Amino acid sequence: MGLKLKLSAAAMFVAAVTFAQDPYEGLRESWLKKAEEAKPALNYTEAAPVATVRTVQDAGSFQGWRFEEEGTPEALYGKNFKDVGSVTLDFGKHLVGYFQFHTKTLSNCMDAPVRFKLTFAEMPAELNTPFDPWSKDRLGRAWMQDETITLTRLDEWVRIPRRIAFRYVKIEMLGWPGAGYSFAIDGVRFTAQSTAGEVKTSLEQDCPDLIRRINDVGVETLRECMQTVYEDGPKRDQRLWIGDMYLEALANKHSFKNFALTKRCLYLFAALAREDGVLFADIIEDPVPHPQYGTYITPYALLWNVALLDYLDDTGDRETAEDLFPVAKVQIAEGLSFVGEDGLFDVAKKPSWLFIDHRAGLDVSASMQGVMVFALQKTYELARKLGRENEVHEYPALIKKMTRAARKYLYDKKSGLVLSGPGKQVSIMSQSWLSIASVLSPAEGAKAIRTALDHEGCVMPGTPYAMHYLLYAMLRCGMETEARRTMEDYWGGMVKKGADTFWEAYDPEDDMYSPYGFTPLNSACHAWSCTPVWFIHEYPGIFQK
Amino acid sequence: MGLKLKLSAAAMFVAAVTFAQDPYEGLRESWLKKAEEAKPALNYTEAAPVATVRTVQDAGSFQGWRFEEEGTPEALYGKNFKDVGSVTLDFGKHLVGYFQFHTKTLSNCMDAPVRFKLTFAEMPAELNTPFDPWSKDRLGRAWMQDETITLTRLDEWVRIPRRIAFRYVKIEMLGWPGAGYSFAIDGVRFTAQSTAGEVKTSLEQDCPDLIRRINDVGVETLRECMQTVYEDGPKRDQRLWIGDMYLEALANKHSFKNFALTKRCLYLFAALAREDGVLFADIIEDPVPHPQYGTYITPYALLWNVALLDYLDDTGDRETAEDLFPVAKVQIAEGLSFVGEDGLFDVAKKPSWLFIDHRAGLDVSASMQGVMVFALQKTYELARKLGRENEVHEYPALIKKMTRAARKYLYDKKSGLVLSGPGKQVSIMSQSWLSIASVLSPAEGAKAIRTALDHEGCVMPGTPYAMHYLLYAMLRCGMETEARRTMEDYWGGMVKKGADTFWEAYDPEDDMYSPYGFTPLNSACHAWSCTPVWFIHEYPGIFQK
Repeated sequence: MGLKLKLSAAAMFVAAVTFAQDPYEGLRESWLKKAEEAKPALNYTEAAPVATVRTVQDAGSFQGWRFEEEGTPEALYGKNFKDVGSVTLDFGKHLVGYFQFHTKTLSNCMDAPVRFKLTFAEMPAELNTPFDPWSKDRLGRAWMQDETITLTRLDEWVRIPRRIAFRYVKIEMLGWPGAGYSFAIDGVRFTAQSTAGEVKTSLEQDCPDLIRRINDVGVETLRECMQTVYEDGPKRDQRLWIGDMYLEALANKHSFKNFALTKRCLYLFAALAREDGVLFADIIEDPVPHPQYGTYITPYALLWNVALLDYLDDTGDRETAEDLFPVAKVQIAEGLSFVGEDGLFDVAKKPSWLFIDHRAGLDVSASMQGVMVFALQKTYELARKLGRENEVHEYPALIKKMTRAARKYLYDKKSGLVLSGPGKQVSIMSQSWLSIASVLSPAEGAKAIRTALDHEGCVMPGTPYAMHYLLYAMLRCGMETEARRTMEDYWGGMVKKGADTFWEAYDPEDDMYSPYGFTPLNSACHAWSCTPVWFIHEYPGIFQK
Repeated sequence: MGLKLKLSAAAMFVAAVTFAQDPYEGLRESWLKKAEEAKPALNYTEAAPVATVRTVQDAGSFQGWRFEEEGTPEALYGKNFKDVGSVTLDFGKHLVGYFQFHTKTLSNCMDAPVRFKLTFAEMPAELNTPFDPWSKDRLGRAWMQDETITLTRLDEWVRIPRRIAFRYVKIEMLGWPGAGYSFAIDGVRFTAQSTAGEVKTSLEQDCPDLIRRINDVGVETLRECMQTVYEDGPKRDQRLWIGDMYLEALANKHSFKNFALTKRCLYLFAALAREDGVLFADIIEDPVPHPQYGTYITPYALLWNVALLDYLDDTGDRETAEDLFPVAKVQIAEGLSFVGEDGLFDVAKKPSWLFIDHRAGLDVSASMQGVMVFALQKTYELARKLGRENEVHEYPALIKKMTRAARKYLYDKKSGLVLSGPGKQVSIMSQSWLSIASVLSPAEGAKAIRTALDHEGCVMPGTPYAMHYLLYAMLRCGMETEARRTMEDYWGGMVKKGADTFWEAYDPEDDMYSPYGFTPLNSACHAWSCTPVWFIHEYPGIFQK
């Protein structure tokens, strides 16, 4: 679909949700146009498999499976596939794009169609875990990348229509033609795509090897997620979420420096906001850009403001910041509507899905207090930079009030811990967010985080997303050694377990951890885990020595 | 692929098999060109389902299953398919072509890909019999028309790439998107194709209803099989076999009168013959027309000669007959090379697959004798019509010799039966073929057929292909009443059991009969069963009164 058609279809959507009270009246269409104009072109590269591999069940490998090199793709290409029956190819690295394979008649001719099952996987265990029967409690079965196809002719290239994110593909012959006939799979190719472009940064020469590897894996993770939007994961959900975008933009600053993509995403969220101006949490591009209706995440909407400030700092693009500043104000106003007279963010009002981490049982009261204060601080900073403090003159007082309330109701001076919710839950996220928001002093924050880490029953982070905020909090609290160790243990742990892109979910104590009840559903290349790239470059003295 | 490219690729094949002794040297390329030029254009018609149906297991229905109308397609189109889950659509008649369906977002938006299984079937039982696990002894699994697809976007038409032959389609949702989201399958369409064109004949006004219905079903069968070649069955094998072509050309004479297709097929076989001039039994069109190497059926090669004579009679196209007469001579010479000094066709020399019928255990010695004599007679007739008897002056003596040998060694005067092979097997095919070849007089033939039909252990025909020759033999032996009854019982039996196209295999005593060990593999629309169209028009006095 051309830009023109996309714009006009998206404009119809805009028209449909534009009510009288729309705070962005008359602006959405131009914002959508700017989003489309900023869309970077996809770069395509051709990739080929590097080896055929055999599966080894091995309790010592991540999730219990690994692959061993078996032979070359060229050896496969010469074989009668009726003798091969099934083969797994390793492309040597994670790729996003479109898969094709070629068949060749070797002797006689095709006397029946051929049926193949192709299973694409990011991880060895994913390829070795049966998908069916599928439990209804899980996310959709169709996220799994297996396809069954029938060829009624050979000697041509066959393209799998859906976009694939994978490193390994297993090709199984399910239906075979008759005797006295043979054919080969004599070619396999993959057109990989990304809008990332070239890496424009470099590490210090004496940067330690593990940090260098962590950075490389982070860069690859980001590259794969940089499509025509910042996707969360190219396998799943293949879409633009505010939370991921915020972190991807951080890593992009210190790698590809492709700020047009950030601009596009900021505008997309604004143009497609709810009729009252509140941002949807995620956006789907096809068939025309549209929000995932009904999905609001207040902490994400607030972090969008931080991303806008960062974008202004990174690019100096004042026009965009001016355009979108009103949107930032709406997000703050929406967030504040859930803050009570007592100065506390009231999660009981259930303003939306309050996503802080996937860890089950996490109480988010204290974290939300931190996010709200942090957003107020950053939005006020944005206003100052635009000379528009007068529009948000009440923010400093609100920050003070909420800080006081947090210290009074959430911070337990005696233990030095932040306690969240009616159950007075101790979690790493609570300590981290009130440190990030400067509710705690650096010394208090460091003590809180250290105490919590040692605290029995402390709710630990479950995702690299949450880990980012812990690391960020540590750095704000002067915990340089612990921040470095955390990166080496957590992201370095993934690298040591074989990651060539960083995972959506990772619990060092539980390889099978999944927020979705089924490990193969986890995305093994997930944007929100790429932030070591930012930390390593933003704090070279801490990480690159 | 354009004609030019096809020709040049096919020419390469021709070059590859053209040896010094090629009897068609210098001719193959021009024959191939004539075949391409004679190719009729496909006519396309749009079809839509007529009803949604529910499955009923019913011992009284053919193969134990039938469908009952449930609702309208329009009712389906408005429903949330997540509530529907699975649906079967009836298109009201057999169709060949390409299937598409459309999805529509009803509320919210797609938050995960959707996975469907589509199963296309010609017959109710086919749709209700599990295909897997698949036995290796059967024909290829991929003949079954089930496809699994994943949609990563909705609100567009999706086309199944393979060509389909079906009346019913079952659509099952295997992977569902999340809650709070709904979509419909709001459109289903089918582009049907055939080269047949319009029916150019009509039945007598007082033609009995059953005969009229048999004729209609035969015409539909032929229409579906008339693609860019005379296919055997549009579901399976989707290709040009001599045996099917011969019978289709008979029916075409009295229905569509599309003789260009016959011309194309005659030339294709000739151009792509073995290097010594012997015809392959079948031809596959994709990616360029080529024979199924290694598949020779001597009786088919001999019947090609009969088809050439018929073509000349039907069209007066002397140029084609002159062109291809040398090919006819080669087939006779090849057949005669298996005839011994005693004047008997010697099946022990195993010249090829000697296909007469699919019925297991059939001894083909006597039938082959009949086919050989019949081909000699018809080829001599062709020579006479072309004024080229001198080229085949030995045929009449050979016919006499083989006739005498057959009467001496194969015909048992006492019982009045033809006995075939060392086991002196009694089969309907042996009686029929020696009647067709006039080895038996009409009176002898009638007695032989009648006696065999009553003979315990007589090997009965297993396919409509074999039944055609029985019916033809009956008519040559003056068995008019029995011929009519045979048609009414056999083809009429299929009609009464619900056929809207005639089946590849049909045993009135055994609904589950299959030559392939799996009933759903049977083709339910098979060219070789369409010959009632020819009988009904060729013998109006017998069938239309």
